[in-house]
Amino acid sequence: MEGLMLDVPLLLSSFLWRTERLFHDKRIITRLSTGGYHSYDYREFGQRVRRLANSLGALGITHGDVVATLAWNHYRHLECYYGVPVMGATLHTVNMRLFEDQQAYTLNHAGARVLLLDADQVPAVERLVEIGIPKVEAFVIMHDGTMPVTNLSPVYSYEQLMARASSEFEFPTFDENTAAAICYTSAATGDPKGVVYSHRALVLQSLILGMNGMLGVDESAVWMPISPMFHANAWCVPHTCLAQGADIVLTGEHPLDRDYLQIIADKRVTGVNAAVTVGQMMRDYIERSGEHLDLSSLKLMWLGAQAPPRGLLDWWMTTNGTRAFTGYGMTESSPQVCFNFTKSTLADAPIEEDWARRTSGGLPIPLMQIKIVDEDDDELPWDGTSIGTVCLRAPYTARGYLNVEAESTSTKLAGWFKSGDVAVIDPDGYVTVKDRIRDHIKSGGEWISSIDLENALMTHPGVREAMVVGVPHEKWQERPVALVVKRDPEVSTADLTRYLTDRFAKWWLPDEYIFLDELPKTSMGKLDKKRARATLGQLRAGST
Amino acid sequence: MEGLMLDVPLLLSSFLWRTERLFHDKRIITRLSTGGYHSYDYREFGQRVRRLANSLGALGITHGDVVATLAWNHYRHLECYYGVPVMGATLHTVNMRLFEDQQAYTLNHAGARVLLLDADQVPAVERLVEIGIPKVEAFVIMHDGTMPVTNLSPVYSYEQLMARASSEFEFPTFDENTAAAICYTSAATGDPKGVVYSHRALVLQSLILGMNGMLGVDESAVWMPISPMFHANAWCVPHTCLAQGADIVLTGEHPLDRDYLQIIADKRVTGVNAAVTVGQMMRDYIERSGEHLDLSSLKLMWLGAQAPPRGLLDWWMTTNGTRAFTGYGMTESSPQVCFNFTKSTLADAPIEEDWARRTSGGLPIPLMQIKIVDEDDDELPWDGTSIGTVCLRAPYTARGYLNVEAESTSTKLAGWFKSGDVAVIDPDGYVTVKDRIRDHIKSGGEWISSIDLENALMTHPGVREAMVVGVPHEKWQERPVALVVKRDPEVSTADLTRYLTDRFAKWWLPDEYIFLDELPKTSMGKLDKKRARATLGQLRAGST
Repeated sequence: MEGLMLDVPLLLSSFLWRTERLFHDKRIITRLSTGGYHSYDYREFGQRVRRLANSLGALGITHGDVVATLAWNHYRHLECYYGVPVMGATLHTVNMRLFEDQQAYTLNHAGARVLLLDADQVPAVERLVEIGIPKVEAFVIMHDGTMPVTNLSPVYSYEQLMARASSEFEFPTFDENTAAAICYTSAATGDPKGVVYSHRALVLQSLILGMNGMLGVDESAVWMPISPMFHANAWCVPHTCLAQGADIVLTGEHPLDRDYLQIIADKRVTGVNAAVTVGQMMRDYIERSGEHLDLSSLKLMWLGAQAPPRGLLDWWMTTNGTRAFTGYGMTESSPQVCFNFTKSTLADAPIEEDWARRTSGGLPIPLMQIKIVDEDDDELPWDGTSIGTVCLRAPYTARGYLNVEAESTSTKLAGWFKSGDVAVIDPDGYVTVKDRIRDHIKSGGEWISSIDLENALMTHPGVREAMVVGVPHEKWQERPVALVVKRDPEVSTADLTRYLTDRFAKWWLPDEYIFLDELPKTSMGKLDKKRARATLGQLRAGST
Repeated sequence: MEGLMLDVPLLLSSFLWRTERLFHDKRIITRLSTGGYHSYDYREFGQRVRRLANSLGALGITHGDVVATLAWNHYRHLECYYGVPVMGATLHTVNMRLFEDQQAYTLNHAGARVLLLDADQVPAVERLVEIGIPKVEAFVIMHDGTMPVTNLSPVYSYEQLMARASSEFEFPTFDENTAAAICYTSAATGDPKGVVYSHRALVLQSLILGMNGMLGVDESAVWMPISPMFHANAWCVPHTCLAQGADIVLTGEHPLDRDYLQIIADKRVTGVNAAVTVGQMMRDYIERSGEHLDLSSLKLMWLGAQAPPRGLLDWWMTTNGTRAFTGYGMTESSPQVCFNFTKSTLADAPIEEDWARRTSGGLPIPLMQIKIVDEDDDELPWDGTSIGTVCLRAPYTARGYLNVEAESTSTKLAGWFKSGDVAVIDPDGYVTVKDRIRDHIKSGGEWISSIDLENALMTHPGVREAMVVGVPHEKWQERPVALVVKRDPEVSTADLTRYLTDRFAKWWLPDEYIFLDELPKTSMGKLDKKRARATLGQLRAGST
């Protein structure tokens, strides 16, 4: 028997409907790099989204087309988050931190017909045109003040297009599997790969992020996504804010660590989501500067992109009463797989056990099914020790990449997405990512977890950041080398070796410590081990 | 462009997956009418759900079949909530409070092949067999102690079937639009009408109930649905509890008001959902008996089925710190349309304005679009005064009833569900239901809201309950008559007339007050105005 329910597709426009009708006086606030803030309400936002849809229509954009952005976190970018998908087109948020040839590659690969860019990105886009982005038919510059001079052509001013456009626009209804957004993820080797999000996936992920025990966004929240809007839809948080009617605060162009803190103080921000490194840098700024900023409004800090050190979570709670917590996500899962919270049944667990859980990726979120598999794709137990490749099954998880032929997987994984992560899962369901498959170190036929070593190093009071990579070794195949940024200038190789000796088997200990001023990072703010290995390889090659 | 996401349907089995894997040690507790409690964990629940699916398979039930229950709120009924739908069959929860001929009608209409019943329902079902329920091929009795003697045939013991069945069962994957459940709603005239819920609808409604600002069920909740499991899936709360991993407490057979209070005290229940009248009766019991029961655990009380009087919400907060709140729902919307919370922007509103909002139906929940229309189906403004028929559009709202040909609606309402309620919506989006269309009183060509009169009467300290119905009138077409249950035996018609005079136009005031010991109620616990009008009609007919 079939259910007799209305055939209403899951579309992002339903969030816009709710916010405009119920929360029209809630605010979207953007830090201006010229000082001060831009602020308007959801009523005006909705009208501008309609103007944008009409403007894009006038440029020839229609259902199924791709529209790209190259932009910071600001209200115009948020208008694109809705104006593009609600008309049935697809928003490709070009990653500002990719190399230019990769940016050009993604524009050509996604087939964007219009590119909306920030004024400061004009020189970069002029170079993209030289590299070749022939499918882009029009450029639209999102500028304050005067229109920049450029040889981009045809070129339009965002605000001039908006001023000419009507604010009347009927949101069309279409299939919920229509692509709403594309984000590219950097691959271990080769070109970036495009993840194509459906409206259905983003709506479901947003509802789930809004659930009790997940992100904690409710109507009273003043939420600031620090994560760039060109990274996995800013972790889907803007959509959750619209679904719930929360205020959104956006960090504007070229934000620095101090800017985040100043905005939190100015706008009484209640929650942020950011890379672990950003949470770390904000802490460092406060400790280093001694400056007093009133951060008392900040209740929640969702830290992602890597496992947070225990000390960082503890510091935010102790010094500011902020519940800093983590989860486990990836571009391919819209992005969340797990969220971390302490189950009520484990509230009285011993402190070390509790911290091990709280620094793990947490528990799979609703509608997510997860398993870990061995090299034969057979499922491994949730025993806290078996390490396997993470496989996912959820309506918001990618089944593949844009125009990439699916790798053949065994029938055991039919209907599942096989990720590039290896993890253990404990009997309570907490998922701890042990490594990217490509970062795992194989020494003497045994695996060494670079993440376990890094986490241990980062609990040392003299260490600010640490990265461990495998380098080729004639006898053992690979051996671990640690790259360390000191907090305490006195800390030495001998100190760290002694510190780890208590914690790990002798053959796990790094062969060498290299002290640096900063670690190589990817555009996602993650440790860039690919680059670190290449640099170390060159160093070795040079030294022989 | 199409999104490249995994094709994972929204199925109730995904909640079971999550609870079994992550929250296997959380508990399902049932009050036993023999005293004490039955309690087990989600691990055992999952195994028994599998046994039930296998048992039903052995009885010939397969994908698309209908399986009925006639049962109280208890763990076996909850097993049916999952065991039936996860195999692709449809659960028809027969309403225990319908008249027997109506129960037989719904069984025949839905085509149930198996009926699972509580032991105390055996005599009733024997009478249903006499009335004729030829499609039911097997009866399964959910009994504690010995199997009752009965002439039902063929008849099985639930526990004996379970004991014989395997606990291995692979949950099949199928279309999310497959019917998971059927509930019948009593119609204004004629036979009950069947609402057929898809898995998709129940999954979406459950996720939304679990959102911040909605029901408030998180993993740490100990939730007790007092609403019967044969009424709109106990308001979808059991599914939300499974999605979130909350403990569930079930009220067992023949619960009385005091039982609810005792269970809350015994099991440290944190939240309940119940009809307004139940919240009222619990209050009355406490006040009347003076008995001390420790209800300090009870933080949330979701009251539905009608608008709650202000005094009741206030009483629960003042005397017990319980946040009692309401919403607006209907069997046709899985069931929620709106939830009531105070927007942060209205936190400082004047107290009378605040109470008007808090006793309204509240704000439309995510994915719900609502409008009110006039007699020509044209949309009316959200101005707090225009009264119109409520129309809904959500993926969890009915498009019609089982085997009922759709009424022809104007093309203006294509894709919308036109309800039987009339309401106003204020500019902030708060929906206040003014009446069922059939309960609206038309006097001298103008509308009188029976609900407005009732709510006003119930704020009088001498009134426990009040109902206002229209009775035919030669001159004015209809005139209001009030039926009142006194709290204070001294209260008189003159008192109430004086009380209402300040609040309403003179022509709104009831022509007559009839004082009763209790008001006629429907099986949903709602005021039964149909019956009241019929009784009044008979009284009038008898008196002339």
